[in-house]
Amino acid sequence: MPFELSKDFINRIRDSIEAKDEKAAIEILDTLHPADIAEIYDEMDIDEAKFLYLLLDKEKAADTIAELDEDDREHFLKFLSSEVIAKQFIEKMDSDDAADVIGDMDEEKQEQVLSHIEDIEQAGDIVDLMAYDENTAGGLMAKELIKVNENWTLTNCLREMRKQAEEVDEVYYVYVINDNDILHGTASLKRMLLSDNRKKVKDISNKDVISVKTDTPKEEVAGIMEKYDLVVLPVTDSIGRLLGRITIDDVVDVIKEEAEKDYQMASGISEDIESTDKVWVLTRARIPWLFIGLLGGILVANVIGFYEVDLGMYPEMAFFIPLIAAMGGNVGVQSSAIIVQGLANNSLGIESTYKKLGREFVVASINGVILSVIIFIYNVFASDTYALTLTVSIALFSVIIFASFFGTIIPLALNKYKIDPALATGPFITTLNDIMGLFIYLMIGRILFATL
Amino acid sequence: MPFELSKDFINRIRDSIEAKDEKAAIEILDTLHPADIAEIYDEMDIDEAKFLYLLLDKEKAADTIAELDEDDREHFLKFLSSEVIAKQFIEKMDSDDAADVIGDMDEEKQEQVLSHIEDIEQAGDIVDLMAYDENTAGGLMAKELIKVNENWTLTNCLREMRKQAEEVDEVYYVYVINDNDILHGTASLKRMLLSDNRKKVKDISNKDVISVKTDTPKEEVAGIMEKYDLVVLPVTDSIGRLLGRITIDDVVDVIKEEAEKDYQMASGISEDIESTDKVWVLTRARIPWLFIGLLGGILVANVIGFYEVDLGMYPEMAFFIPLIAAMGGNVGVQSSAIIVQGLANNSLGIESTYKKLGREFVVASINGVILSVIIFIYNVFASDTYALTLTVSIALFSVIIFASFFGTIIPLALNKYKIDPALATGPFITTLNDIMGLFIYLMIGRILFATL
Repeated sequence: MPFELSKDFINRIRDSIEAKDEKAAIEILDTLHPADIAEIYDEMDIDEAKFLYLLLDKEKAADTIAELDEDDREHFLKFLSSEVIAKQFIEKMDSDDAADVIGDMDEEKQEQVLSHIEDIEQAGDIVDLMAYDENTAGGLMAKELIKVNENWTLTNCLREMRKQAEEVDEVYYVYVINDNDILHGTASLKRMLLSDNRKKVKDISNKDVISVKTDTPKEEVAGIMEKYDLVVLPVTDSIGRLLGRITIDDVVDVIKEEAEKDYQMASGISEDIESTDKVWVLTRARIPWLFIGLLGGILVANVIGFYEVDLGMYPEMAFFIPLIAAMGGNVGVQSSAIIVQGLANNSLGIESTYKKLGREFVVASINGVILSVIIFIYNVFASDTYALTLTVSIALFSVIIFASFFGTIIPLALNKYKIDPALATGPFITTLNDIMGLFIYLMIGRILFATL
Repeated sequence: MPFELSKDFINRIRDSIEAKDEKAAIEILDTLHPADIAEIYDEMDIDEAKFLYLLLDKEKAADTIAELDEDDREHFLKFLSSEVIAKQFIEKMDSDDAADVIGDMDEEKQEQVLSHIEDIEQAGDIVDLMAYDENTAGGLMAKELIKVNENWTLTNCLREMRKQAEEVDEVYYVYVINDNDILHGTASLKRMLLSDNRKKVKDISNKDVISVKTDTPKEEVAGIMEKYDLVVLPVTDSIGRLLGRITIDDVVDVIKEEAEKDYQMASGISEDIESTDKVWVLTRARIPWLFIGLLGGILVANVIGFYEVDLGMYPEMAFFIPLIAAMGGNVGVQSSAIIVQGLANNSLGIESTYKKLGREFVVASINGVILSVIIFIYNVFASDTYALTLTVSIALFSVIIFASFFGTIIPLALNKYKIDPALATGPFITTLNDIMGLFIYLMIGRILFATL
């Protein structure tokens, strides 16, 4: 049943567009959800997309525009007049989507579009929402909600809700406010269905309502909705007056973005990119970490250069340079990833940093002993010099301990100073551990080769 | 307003437990959500948790148990008899949570607990759900839902819903079925509120309902709910009979797990672990990739060993071994991360592999030229030998091209053969690129040092 985009499907649509066969195209589009049509737009050039767009009924066209990703939407809206954008799209959108779409335009276009919105209240809502930082609850919320006064009877309440419901797409909860607009609770539709109509709203309302303020950071909003399994979360101003609500679908995007951002950081990618982005965007997102890696490599070259004479005498010392560097990097990335993920999930608990370091030290010691013994046994058979055998095992163990320590302490320290701890993963920690690891390795090597 | 766990707070609770001050403890617990109490349990030993548990009212106690994470819950339930588990917890849970909790027990305990559930229908629902693979829609769904026949009038329908609603926590949609239980649509509570009571259900129902089958993989379920912004998704059997529904809160967990799994893979962690897990769990999750890294390091040592004589003559060749290895690793991880994330998000579109490789080649060439020129300029000033200067730049450029190629093609190939493409990131691709990069570097070095 779910739609899957295929080359054949795109070709069928292309054929109908080339033949200007509107009937065939309409037949295809009719069966599709706006989110599917948005995927198709993604594959089309602007003329093809416009041809399809004119065939959609107005409601579906507006929904499709809301589903497009930012770049595509901007590209597409450029070809439409402010009036068409206002009347055919914005007026049919929820206030949060409308604020996002208008917020992406330049100021002049924003004013033009807003001036064409007939419903002054709607235009006002959109302007209100555009004022909030997009990384806060205010930037995520929509104005559409159903609110009832706690002193009304259920009969009054149902009548009022019939009026308000026209504007709201999905009704999950009804918000209960007092005479001053202060949020006092929620009333579920289920309880309204099951209760006597003469009761007052406050008698059936749930007073334990979880809410956030407009300036709550979006990561915190996501954390709260996730932890308490909420589908919708009311937003108030600083004195508790109800202003809007955030729905879970917007927060799923935040949760995903967060998780993906950490992954991209760990992979050395500095912007949110997709494989289909332009070459220049991809290059720009990738070169900063590569440049840092290059600088690290030059530093490492200088560390090794310090031991040039030793390497000239004992070139076999060079054999294990990559192993030591790689293991330091791997262990450091593991340690920091565990901390970064714990911080992101708020799952580190309340235990102290010392306790974390202690546990990490034990884990590192176990791994260090196991791996050092394995490489020792390998070298007993494979290596000619006892000095090298001993150097590699001692260095490997030391590097694993140090890398665990830095991998744990650095993200915790960054987090303490409000810097994104994910910075500590990926190329940064790899490079740091390369330098430190080789310094330890070569120093131990110099001593052991000289004495044994 | 949202609760935040602190050391002080835990100490206050501990104090009240030690003093056996039930009143103080109840006062603290009363203000908290079950999800908060579960966080507190997480910090307590079993006796402390039991003391608190006995103070909770039964409903809240059941909700708290459902919020605990698997390990804690298993640990806690061990201390309770099957009858208590059945009557005080399971009977108050939604069928999907109940099936999860019972599914974690050993077979004997499962049977005992099931035998103590009084409501035969509920026990039957749980047994039905336990039969589904936990990685499919069947494993995610709950049986509780409200369904009405399409031929009923709204008046009939409301009466029937009042009956069914007692059992269902949250009502988002009412499902519309025909006489054979086949899912034919949904009816929103909003439209019911707004419509004339004499209408038939089918007149106000939305027939374009998106549903999945019980055997749809959970990743696909998550993708569908995310794409279409669904809060709840009905599940049918293979001929379309309505069996259950999946709510977004369960799918948020799937979405997060997916994103985190990729991150953990990229960081060389093979199990879903938390920083507070036991030492042995942490060690077990980390050593497999470290072992692979070690094997890779040994292979690399052999590649370098092949050039021992060259390194003895030109020890400065060793300086840039870590740089070449690290850059190969970094570029490879970047390339594979972009593909892995694209596959996970289904955002690669329908373009061919050739086109992807072509774009990747252009990006790699740009980055390669920029970085090779930088290191060339550095070496012109820093290095004594022209051979080394040239070797490093040529090798760096080649390594970047090769690493991009492998980083792109390997996850795509793995995905084609239904192997998790995230395997291609992290230590695996780093090690592969180490070996390849150093082979290229040393080969070019041998040639250039011999000829220049």
